[in-house]
Amino acid sequence: MITVNENFLKLQAGYLFPEIGRRIKAFTAKNPGADIIKMGIGDVTQPLAPAIIEAMHKAADEMACLNTFRGYDDSGIGYEFLRQAILDNDYKTRGVDLDLDEIFVSDGAKCDTANMQEIFGTDNIVAVTDPVYPVYVDTNVMAGRSGQAGGKGRYEGIVYMPCSAENDFVPALPTEPVDIIYLCFPNNPTGAVASKEQLKAWVDYARDNKAVILYDSAYEAYIADEKIPHSIYEVEGAKEVTIEFRSFSKTAGFTGVRCAYSVVPKSLTAYKSDGSAVDVRPLWARRHCTKFNGVSYITQRAAEAVYSANGKKQVRDTIKLYMENAARIREGLIRLGYIVYGGLNAPYIWLKTPDDMTSWDFFDYLLKEANIVGTPGSGFGAAGEGYFRLTAFALPENVKIAMERFARL
Amino acid sequence: MITVNENFLKLQAGYLFPEIGRRIKAFTAKNPGADIIKMGIGDVTQPLAPAIIEAMHKAADEMACLNTFRGYDDSGIGYEFLRQAILDNDYKTRGVDLDLDEIFVSDGAKCDTANMQEIFGTDNIVAVTDPVYPVYVDTNVMAGRSGQAGGKGRYEGIVYMPCSAENDFVPALPTEPVDIIYLCFPNNPTGAVASKEQLKAWVDYARDNKAVILYDSAYEAYIADEKIPHSIYEVEGAKEVTIEFRSFSKTAGFTGVRCAYSVVPKSLTAYKSDGSAVDVRPLWARRHCTKFNGVSYITQRAAEAVYSANGKKQVRDTIKLYMENAARIREGLIRLGYIVYGGLNAPYIWLKTPDDMTSWDFFDYLLKEANIVGTPGSGFGAAGEGYFRLTAFALPENVKIAMERFARL
Repeated sequence: MITVNENFLKLQAGYLFPEIGRRIKAFTAKNPGADIIKMGIGDVTQPLAPAIIEAMHKAADEMACLNTFRGYDDSGIGYEFLRQAILDNDYKTRGVDLDLDEIFVSDGAKCDTANMQEIFGTDNIVAVTDPVYPVYVDTNVMAGRSGQAGGKGRYEGIVYMPCSAENDFVPALPTEPVDIIYLCFPNNPTGAVASKEQLKAWVDYARDNKAVILYDSAYEAYIADEKIPHSIYEVEGAKEVTIEFRSFSKTAGFTGVRCAYSVVPKSLTAYKSDGSAVDVRPLWARRHCTKFNGVSYITQRAAEAVYSANGKKQVRDTIKLYMENAARIREGLIRLGYIVYGGLNAPYIWLKTPDDMTSWDFFDYLLKEANIVGTPGSGFGAAGEGYFRLTAFALPENVKIAMERFARL
Repeated sequence: MITVNENFLKLQAGYLFPEIGRRIKAFTAKNPGADIIKMGIGDVTQPLAPAIIEAMHKAADEMACLNTFRGYDDSGIGYEFLRQAILDNDYKTRGVDLDLDEIFVSDGAKCDTANMQEIFGTDNIVAVTDPVYPVYVDTNVMAGRSGQAGGKGRYEGIVYMPCSAENDFVPALPTEPVDIIYLCFPNNPTGAVASKEQLKAWVDYARDNKAVILYDSAYEAYIADEKIPHSIYEVEGAKEVTIEFRSFSKTAGFTGVRCAYSVVPKSLTAYKSDGSAVDVRPLWARRHCTKFNGVSYITQRAAEAVYSANGKKQVRDTIKLYMENAARIREGLIRLGYIVYGGLNAPYIWLKTPDDMTSWDFFDYLLKEANIVGTPGSGFGAAGEGYFRLTAFALPENVKIAMERFARL
């Protein structure tokens, strides 16, 4: 008898964005003329940079000719031209050296952060921040690293590390043993960043406790503060205990193009249950090459173009536009008396709801009174209750209008 | 202490294609002038069809403009324009109707056939053909559905169903209980196809035994015989027990572009350990939307163009070219006295090695004496010993030369 993976049945039904969609639909059905400004889902809106478009056209033309056509990417881990560009631009510039085969090109950081847990035992204790990007939690529930969902939607067996204004949205070190630690800086949803000292405390914790940190750095391109590390590998010893995830989605508008990468250092070890050490990189290489078949050649050429002289400039200009949005939202809300976090080194603004409203009450209020859609903080976890996320990805003219509507509330 | 998934440590090190690469390298080091013809790895060589290239350029230009830019594919399962084209062209033409949300667009049939097992319990017994596409086996080993590798490289706990000339390379029904059955027709590596009656026997078996069939149909575009089903859903009752995998890789040369799809029918059920039924489609939808983030918009437009009037004609022309290669290889070898299978409804020719040579001995002999690279049958499983695979994807002029070399052996 074919049985299902019953861990899937533990998953809670109500995913955040479908519920938001449902409420918008209900509202627009009643108010068909409403001019709704969406500052909810974290998707980019600006077109791809000209240098990227040019690279895609060129690659497409190569695929049209017998002599330049490319089939499977035989390396299995991404074309060397792209891995070299990543190494030179994203790491060497920050003083981090890597071997080229420590970089694994993929079709998305969502996939990578979701799949990486597969190479670890199901007996490991998982620690996540609260609020958190739901993918980290759901994929571990699917894999059997949790019990049932309990109060506040938290799963038994998963360690939640609350992040709030009190700890600057950087969690305290766990007081109970944990093995797999998900960290994301600049953070989605809070927009917080971690200093080198704060990251060092985590790296030291992982080294002392034989834990692994899965470090999601998908928003590093938004860091403006020169003192903030872009890679966790800027911290000494991090290569022994950390896997890093990066993405072109938010850096270069690739949410619809799909390219990302993971770094799995050769010095990273984990253990068999008998305590003997095992190299982690070969496990991921085997997983990646067995269950994945590479990223589109056209997409890899597009990603390479992000690092060309023109590409860099164009991509920076787009990020500047988003961060001007962020500044406008942040400063506008502060002027209106809101308590606001994030938005300085991240495209996310995390605000305290006024008058102790719940996150969903504020969502409904904002939709009804200002026709603005944001994301309720409680959708990211229990500790997000009473907070609200706005993204900086809307069009500048819409951000302007949104702030006028906030002022009239 | 962070533990590894020890199931990964059961995987056998020597993967087939790296070993082939090693032997070619050693040979060319000794024979630098040798003009090697590669008929080994199943990768296409012909460029993408003009209609596909045109669609990619158009889509890239859309991504360059604010009004036509596309970010995330919000459906999570593929744009409707592509799923509709798939339904209309691949299924309705064969008398099969599906709901659009039973089709899940992905970045490869390798990924889909690798990932699908995740939604089923680890207690299920897996049955595979022997020889077999190694991904089916390795991914189940990783998930813990096997013991250690034993004699002939077979894993304990996995049921191997031998395919040989005696059973026309279509396996007999299992005599012991199995729950997850992998079938692939037209078959990689043997090039065999299954008739409607043969597939019906499998569907009936699955219905009678509460098993699920994972049906890999990645090579259906190569079927020439009008009586052979292209989809297992042409068999009555198959929707209750079968998931089907399709790919644009071999159909339209997408090995470097990455697009495929799975069909998970709503009428497919599996069971909780207490025997109660669970719908399978929502489990896969949850898996797909949690661990994957869609296929490049440009790629999806390219796949759509495969179904345009020009696209269909151009893609058929390329398949015709490959199948003329297949006929040339097949007929040439038969004339030379080889015992040959496949090559009629599949791009693979599966031949008996002469004089009872082992598969690897014949590999070495062919490389040395004719400078031709093929794939040893034993690399696909114990029952492949004494067989050898040639692919029809080489350039026609090289196939001609290869057959002259065979004649001179």
